[in-house]
Formats: sequence, C-alpha cells, structure tokens
Amino acid sequence: MSSIDRDRVTAALTKRRGLVNDALTETLPIDHPEQLYAASRHLLDAGGKRLRPSVLLLVAEALTDTEPLSDEYRSFGPQGIDVMSAAVSVEIIQSFTLIHDDIMDDDDLRRGVPSVHEAYDLDTAILAGDTLYSKAFECMLDTDASASRSVRALKELATTCTEICEGQALDVAFERSEGITTTQYLEMIELKTAVLYAASASIPAILLGADDETVEALHQYGIDVGMAFQVQDDLLDLTVPSERLGKQRGSDLVEGKRTLITLHAKEQGIDIDELVATDSVESVTERDIEAAVETLEDAGSIEYARNTARDLITNGKNRLEVLPDCEAQSVLGEIADYLIERRY
Amino acid sequence: MSSIDRDRVTAALTKRRGLVNDALTETLPIDHPEQLYAASRHLLDAGGKRLRPSVLLLVAEALTDTEPLSDEYRSFGPQGIDVMSAAVSVEIIQSFTLIHDDIMDDDDLRRGVPSVHEAYDLDTAILAGDTLYSKAFECMLDTDASASRSVRALKELATTCTEICEGQALDVAFERSEGITTTQYLEMIELKTAVLYAASASIPAILLGADDETVEALHQYGIDVGMAFQVQDDLLDLTVPSERLGKQRGSDLVEGKRTLITLHAKEQGIDIDELVATDSVESVTERDIEAAVETLEDAGSIEYARNTARDLITNGKNRLEVLPDCEAQSVLGEIADYLIERRY
Repeated sequence: MSSIDRDRVTAALTKRRGLVNDALTETLPIDHPEQLYAASRHLLDAGGKRLRPSVLLLVAEALTDTEPLSDEYRSFGPQGIDVMSAAVSVEIIQSFTLIHDDIMDDDDLRRGVPSVHEAYDLDTAILAGDTLYSKAFECMLDTDASASRSVRALKELATTCTEICEGQALDVAFERSEGITTTQYLEMIELKTAVLYAASASIPAILLGADDETVEALHQYGIDVGMAFQVQDDLLDLTVPSERLGKQRGSDLVEGKRTLITLHAKEQGIDIDELVATDSVESVTERDIEAAVETLEDAGSIEYARNTARDLITNGKNRLEVLPDCEAQSVLGEIADYLIERRY
Repeated sequence: MSSIDRDRVTAALTKRRGLVNDALTETLPIDHPEQLYAASRHLLDAGGKRLRPSVLLLVAEALTDTEPLSDEYRSFGPQGIDVMSAAVSVEIIQSFTLIHDDIMDDDDLRRGVPSVHEAYDLDTAILAGDTLYSKAFECMLDTDASASRSVRALKELATTCTEICEGQALDVAFERSEGITTTQYLEMIELKTAVLYAASASIPAILLGADDETVEALHQYGIDVGMAFQVQDDLLDLTVPSERLGKQRGSDLVEGKRTLITLHAKEQGIDIDELVATDSVESVTERDIEAAVETLEDAGSIEYARNTARDLITNGKNRLEVLPDCEAQSVLGEIADYLIERRY
C-alpha cells in the first residue's frame, strides 16, 4: 500500500549518512581538552539517521540538478560551495539540543547509549552542548559562500536556535500547565522540532543563491515535514508494539505527557488524566494501554492526528514544485512520505 | 600613588554602562514565552560593570577619533555601523556563560541576587543560557556592517565561544587534578576569561574596517587585560578584607581552588593543601587566613602574581599605540590600570 519506493529512500539516506558521519569525525576531532571533545562527540558517535543534513544535501543536489551522491559536497555547484559544512552544522545543532534536552527531561538513555550527563556528568554535558553550539556556527561560516549569502545563512541558523529554545521552554511549561490547546501544541512543535528542518531545507538554497520564493518554499517544506515528523512520533508511541518501539508502548499516556492526540481528546471532553489508571510505566499492562487507545480512537483523536500529519506532508510535498524535476527532488518528496509511514 | 585618573575611568564606564543597559532592555524584551525571557534577563537586570561592551564602544570611538559618548552608537562612523548591537552581543555572551557556570560551580548567589538556577530551576537556567547564546549571534549579525566584515566578526565571536567552553572545561578539570602548573593555569584563564575581552576589543576594529595589524593588536590588548583581570581577582580574594569582598577573605584557599598564587607556591615546594587547616568557609578564622597569606608572601607568590598582572597590563597598554592619540585611547589605557588597581 506504500506510495513510496522505500528502498530508494533508505538507500539515499544510508549513503548520505555515511558521508555526513565522515564529515562529522573530520569536523570534531578529539582535541584538547579531550574529555570535552569526547563528550561532544558521544551522541554523534552513537548514530542517528542524519535526516536533517541529508535533506540539506538533497536540496543542494536538486537545486543544481546534479547527479545525486556526487563526491563534490565540499565544493559544490558552479561556485564551489562546501554544502557538507552546512550539513554538518545542522546535525551538530541537533546534537547540542539533544544533550541539553536529555538533562531537562532526565533521560538516561539515547540511541541505545547513556545520555551525555549519565556517561560523563552534568557539568560536562552542559559544556559539551555549549561547545557544539559555537562549533555549528563555525561550520556554517566555513562554506566558502559569498559573504552576503553566509550572513543570510547565519541569520537563519541563529533565529532557528532561538526558536528551538522557545519551543523547548514551551514544552517544559506545558508539562506543568492545564488547558493547553491543540493549536498551542502545534505552535510548540513548530518551534521545537520543525524549524531545524526548515533551516536544513532553506540554507542550501540561500548558499547556492536561489531566489527568495524558492528559499521560502523550501523553508515551509521543512516546517511541514518537521511538524508531521513530531505528530508521527506521538502516534508511534500509541500504535507500535513495545518490542519494536524499544520502550513501553503508550508511555506518553502513562507519564501524562501532552500530545496532539490527547489534547484533541481533551477538546472532545475526554478526561485524559483518567485514560490510564497507573502513572508508572513499570506497572501498566498492555490491556490498560489497549483500552486507552480505544477511547482515543472512539473520540476520533487518532484519526485527527493521522490526518494532521498527512495534510502537512501533502502541503510539504507541494512546496517542492519550486525545485527542478529530478531524482533528488523526488527523494525529498519520498522522505516526506517516509516520515509518516515509518514504524519506529 | 595611583597612576590613573580614577574619576575619569569611573565616569567613562558609568555613562557607557547606562547606554548599554538601555540597549540590553531594548534587545531582550520579555517576550513569549515569558518565563524564558525573564530568566534570560535575570542576571543582566541584576547589574554588572559592563566592562566588555564599554571596551568595545571605546575602541570604536578611538578608531574614528570621535568625541566619546556620542549618541550615535546605533549608526557609528562614516559607514553608520551599529556598534551598540555588537557591544550588547558580547555582554549577552558574558551573561550566558555566567548562567551556565553558576550551575557547574553550584553558586547560589551572583551580583547579590539568586543565580538563575536558584531563582528559577535547572531546566530554565540551561535554556536561558542557550537562548542568550543565539541572541548574541543575532545581535552580531545586526550591525549593518558590510557582509564581509560581518562574517569576520561572526567568526571571531564563534571561535571565542568555543574557546570559553574549552577554558571552562579546563577549569573544571583542574579542580579534580593534581600537578597543574602556572603555565597551564595561565592558558586556562586566557581561554576562560581573556578571549571575550579580546573579542570585545577587536570586533569594533573589524566592523569599522581597520587593518589587520590594528585588529591583531587590539585582540592582544584584550588578552592581556583579560588575563590581568583574572589574576587580580585571585589576588583580591587574599588581600581584601571580608567586609569589602562581600564573602570570606581567602575562600579560594579554604576551598582548595587553584589560583596563580597557590600554583606558584606549590612550584616553590609549599604544601598548599596544608595552608589552611579547615576546608569550611564557616569555621575559618581571620588568623588562619593571615598565616596562610604570610606563607604565600614569604614564598614570593603574591609578588609573583602582582608582577604577572602588572606586566600583562604594561603589554596591553603598549598595544594601544595602534590607536590614534585621543581621549578614548587614554581611557582604554586607564581601564587597564584600573583593572589591577581596583579593590573589589
């Protein structure tokens, strides 16, 4: 039933992931002071899909209608732009936010390894995040783009970082507040999650000198797919068996975490705090979760979230019309589909 | 005996501090999400000497040989550069580092108010620091300088931030290590403290289009006075009465904090861990401190630190010869003297 060529998306992401990984190792050598740089690399070395840098590279390819997977990411297009340095920059920002978020969310595990504050300590985790933050700006200044394009890319990056902090602040605040609406939730995930996808899609266009309309459309593509990505994450927590999820299915429900699904249910008059009786992930049963999911299904909340994600992806894919019709462009469309069809 | 016109320095700093404070309020309105921005402003609102932004403004004045205290900081010099935005940027970086350092050092008080993680909480303090970090980059991108000068200023800022993190990492590591030398200590304070003074002095020169020799000399002025500033801080802890210091005199000694003075003494064969018997600031007596200071004096360690600070200041002042002979230039020289003559 899939509308996408899953093998092609996987192959495209796998190949670019390898190149991004090489570039990350090159950009962040374990320098003096060694513990600081080892801690900075800890999560990056633990893996990750490299979705954001891959989107950045694919947009660069689509804009220049270059054969994908050219070896020329370090001197790309007629002006010889180091788009890989920009790709590395957004991945480094992502890693910085994960390190600091794990502290705030008290998460001990990430990508199958201890989070940085667990593997090292709180001080080192704060500093590792801070170091990656400025390193990302250094990378974005290292693309060999003209000064005016560099300035514009830097502005996009700086604004994006401010917005990510605002989104994370809202997320933390929402955990402590009553009466959050689905609209507020969507605003939060736009800031917390989607703006970095938007930067990843628009920055290559800025660096390669695309016109404003193209830059703006790609920015919106990133917002749309980034928001859909987060809504899909919320859905996966409820719909994927615990074994495949790698954590208790429905843990968001048990822990009382607000999601688009529960907030919609609340707006339908459901008492979401009573959906699951226990608030301990250890003692909850599959039957408890099943009953809660059924209630959410009856309220139309799961369908609402699915439709929201699907509409975002449809909008996002339509934005890609600004790009030339080429393989990189179709892969970008398929990545959008992949984000809401993935099962983990 | 003072070689400086203390009243003139104080007046110059006071007037610029007022203007910087106004600009900070303008730059960081208490926006949505309000708690995040209130926390970001918390330490900035609590005061501070604004030494770094004042140095930045004075260098701009000296380079253009403008009458000091012109109202035109927002559109400065023939090219109409917003040097105030650059000044605000370095102060915001300073405030971000204080917020995160207070978490790492477990300091509950700063500038007479609770530190951000005390007044709010750990999560908010991490995020407030992160928000200021990107805001500082936004400000540095907002100076109306030509794109190529902006890129250079941004590179200076990004490198500076990475170095500050490296310095803080070394500082944390030194607390846990034996056998740190005075040379390693000086390297640490260069990174942790001096590079932000160097950025403050060199960035206005970059933005106003000064030649490389001038930029480099001003950078070195910042390194010299920044290092002297830190050494003087170490001296003040030993030589200023507790009432004036606002905390127990000699608390660095009691807490076993390594300073240039104790590391020098160690190199002279003194057992610095035995200098003060107690390791509690509450139970130490003035007599204990007095005896320890005497030992350090006999070892020549206090004189060594004084000479180090004095030599740095002499070097720093000599760097100012690249600037035109004007009032702003002499105030910059007097600020250097002031930093090691200040008594708190």
